[in-house]
Amino acid sequence: MSEHLSTKPYKGVRDFYPEDMSVQQYLFETWSYTAEQFGFLRYEASVLEPSELYKAKGAENEEMVNEQTYTFTDRGKREVTLRPEMTPTVARMVAGRRNELSFPVRWYSIPNLFRYERTQRGRLREHWQLNCDIFGVDDVSADIEILLLADAIFRNFGAENGTHYTINVASRALLESLYDQLTMSDEERVAATRLADRKLKMKPATFKKELFAAIADEDAAKTVLTYLNADSISTLPATVLNCEPLADLTSLMNTLDEAGSPVVFDPTIVRGFDYYTGIVFEVKDLHPENNRSMMGGGRYNDLTGLFGGDPIPGIGFGFGDVTLKDFLESHNLLTADVRSATLSILPMDTTLNINAQKIAQQFRLKDIATTVDVSTKKVGKKISAASDAFIDYVLVLGSDELDSGTYTVKNLATGEEESGTVEELIASLVE
Amino acid sequence: MSEHLSTKPYKGVRDFYPEDMSVQQYLFETWSYTAEQFGFLRYEASVLEPSELYKAKGAENEEMVNEQTYTFTDRGKREVTLRPEMTPTVARMVAGRRNELSFPVRWYSIPNLFRYERTQRGRLREHWQLNCDIFGVDDVSADIEILLLADAIFRNFGAENGTHYTINVASRALLESLYDQLTMSDEERVAATRLADRKLKMKPATFKKELFAAIADEDAAKTVLTYLNADSISTLPATVLNCEPLADLTSLMNTLDEAGSPVVFDPTIVRGFDYYTGIVFEVKDLHPENNRSMMGGGRYNDLTGLFGGDPIPGIGFGFGDVTLKDFLESHNLLTADVRSATLSILPMDTTLNINAQKIAQQFRLKDIATTVDVSTKKVGKKISAASDAFIDYVLVLGSDELDSGTYTVKNLATGEEESGTVEELIASLVE
Repeated sequence: MSEHLSTKPYKGVRDFYPEDMSVQQYLFETWSYTAEQFGFLRYEASVLEPSELYKAKGAENEEMVNEQTYTFTDRGKREVTLRPEMTPTVARMVAGRRNELSFPVRWYSIPNLFRYERTQRGRLREHWQLNCDIFGVDDVSADIEILLLADAIFRNFGAENGTHYTINVASRALLESLYDQLTMSDEERVAATRLADRKLKMKPATFKKELFAAIADEDAAKTVLTYLNADSISTLPATVLNCEPLADLTSLMNTLDEAGSPVVFDPTIVRGFDYYTGIVFEVKDLHPENNRSMMGGGRYNDLTGLFGGDPIPGIGFGFGDVTLKDFLESHNLLTADVRSATLSILPMDTTLNINAQKIAQQFRLKDIATTVDVSTKKVGKKISAASDAFIDYVLVLGSDELDSGTYTVKNLATGEEESGTVEELIASLVE
Repeated sequence: MSEHLSTKPYKGVRDFYPEDMSVQQYLFETWSYTAEQFGFLRYEASVLEPSELYKAKGAENEEMVNEQTYTFTDRGKREVTLRPEMTPTVARMVAGRRNELSFPVRWYSIPNLFRYERTQRGRLREHWQLNCDIFGVDDVSADIEILLLADAIFRNFGAENGTHYTINVASRALLESLYDQLTMSDEERVAATRLADRKLKMKPATFKKELFAAIADEDAAKTVLTYLNADSISTLPATVLNCEPLADLTSLMNTLDEAGSPVVFDPTIVRGFDYYTGIVFEVKDLHPENNRSMMGGGRYNDLTGLFGGDPIPGIGFGFGDVTLKDFLESHNLLTADVRSATLSILPMDTTLNINAQKIAQQFRLKDIATTVDVSTKKVGKKISAASDAFIDYVLVLGSDELDSGTYTVKNLATGEEESGTVEELIASLVE
């Protein structure tokens, strides 16, 4: 066969060589650690889901599934989809055990997600996403907790609230309360909400013109404009000052301020999905060249409706690995160490390889991660290779060392050497 | 819509609820820890691979791919497969960087693998598998290391070599050396090797009859029978006593014995795959009701051939999560703790939820995993729920505690209580 196979991965997916995987493990472990600090429990499911899980919400979803996901028919004529998001899966799992679960349920997961993107430069077809949700409680204290968690994740990656990012919040319930008091029609609400979502990408004059075109009553349009232009709660129109959603939002903002995790009021945040019903939020990157929303979420009051039963409220968010890595890199915050063994045994020649394995095993049994360079390289090259692989210590093994039972371990960072029996060297390394 | 969606996962795949995921994390973390103790570096790749990666080896493979894997055509007319095994992927990745990598390369991965199994009771269509390989070195010391690693994995799960399992080894090189010295034809070799693989499932008389039918020369057949009946190196036929593969095997067995990781000689182990060329091994479960091979691997001398370039030798193994879990359960070795927060704050009523969140955050900032029961349950029920969720400590929060700034933490296991300020309680919990 003269034609060789390509070593490239499938289009739009990534290979993780060990140096990439070290970064990935750092991201996942920091995510896990933080979620578990808040008492969240990890769950998982298969990347394969029945396609109806995504199609069930109507014709629009059916089109999305057919055009933007990996969907195929298996040999049992079942339609199956590589999951594009985790929310339908977690809703399915919570609904499936609604009678056994003790609410509030706090769950997190780090699923691999797939989207069939049309060919565009650099667009990936898969990523990994942290998903955190609290189910079964409709209380502002859960909203506060989710925002504390979002902030703690960024802090645990070394980022500073207000320097590297801001957490921007709004309330869909407050917006609906405004619409109610202005007795706006359903069409006016949808049009105004869509405009709010696009506000930051529009010129103020265009925005105002379109908003006034969308709302029949001019006074109502003025009030909505005042609302959407507010840069703090104190500049909101009087219309909403006495409603419960504002009391909740105020309490949330004050508590987060006191807890050292301040959030910014941003009425233009609506989050596209229909299912959000309360607090909505996005974390924005403050980097001047990359000023964008990195992640977001919010409160929904009936996510499990498709599966029947009483509504189960919840609040949650998703946060992708590619976005996080871009953020950390652009702010020089990516400090993941390349993982490696602590010690490498370097036999002077290959006849000593088996003895080297025996010595290595003694170190391993005492919890010291140990490797052996069994290549045919000269010792000098073996030392360079150990240094390139971020190994901390080397032990050069010749027949003299073997005969005497006295070995020398060298610290590659400091150049310091220490000699002794294997037991003495183990005692020194674990100290 | 009166018809509700099913909450079941797709056929043949698993949901991991938190109690299942705790076990899964324990398996994965023990695998990772052990591999990293041996200086192995973790890599990953996408579950999606070009189908040609599996079809390239010939028509037989093409049939296997079409009938036993999830393979479909994407909208760009590319054939794509959900990977059924990791070896082709790691071979692709090593071949792709053969000029940059510093050999020996020690890599591990815990991939999710998919097989399209025909509908059978309890057969899964996906599992997770630890894969460990050493590339770029053709030396018995690497074979020894792989077997030390396999043994260390079982030991780190609390299993005992010789009590719960044995590691059975053979050598394809030794078998070929025997065939060479008996000047057997290619057809005879293939037939004899296939019979060896089935030997333990056949009656001795049937086996002997078929072996003698497969090998023309009767003396040669007798010698092969002696070889395949040998239960130790000392009972091997004289024909192979002076060959290099036997010297290597003897050295391997002696070294592993000295290192406390004994292996058993078992000439019936051949491992189906054509690519094995040296040491082959399988770990056998000693449970009387489940006496089977749990995992295996061996040495191959050209795994990257499909991608061109000089051969790269290697040795490695794969070990599935389902098999491991069955093994641990049948021997009562599965001791994974359900993960949970350390402390749960239990507000007496929901008006105290926000204050509870503020107090929880102080504990979290000092590395104490803390949750808040924001449900509407009575305090007694909240304590039961915390206990059911394997929480270690609870703090009942009433307005008295809030006013005085003195709180009481109760150890749910011992019933002991301790009172003090948040700072004092933190100091006591982290001690």
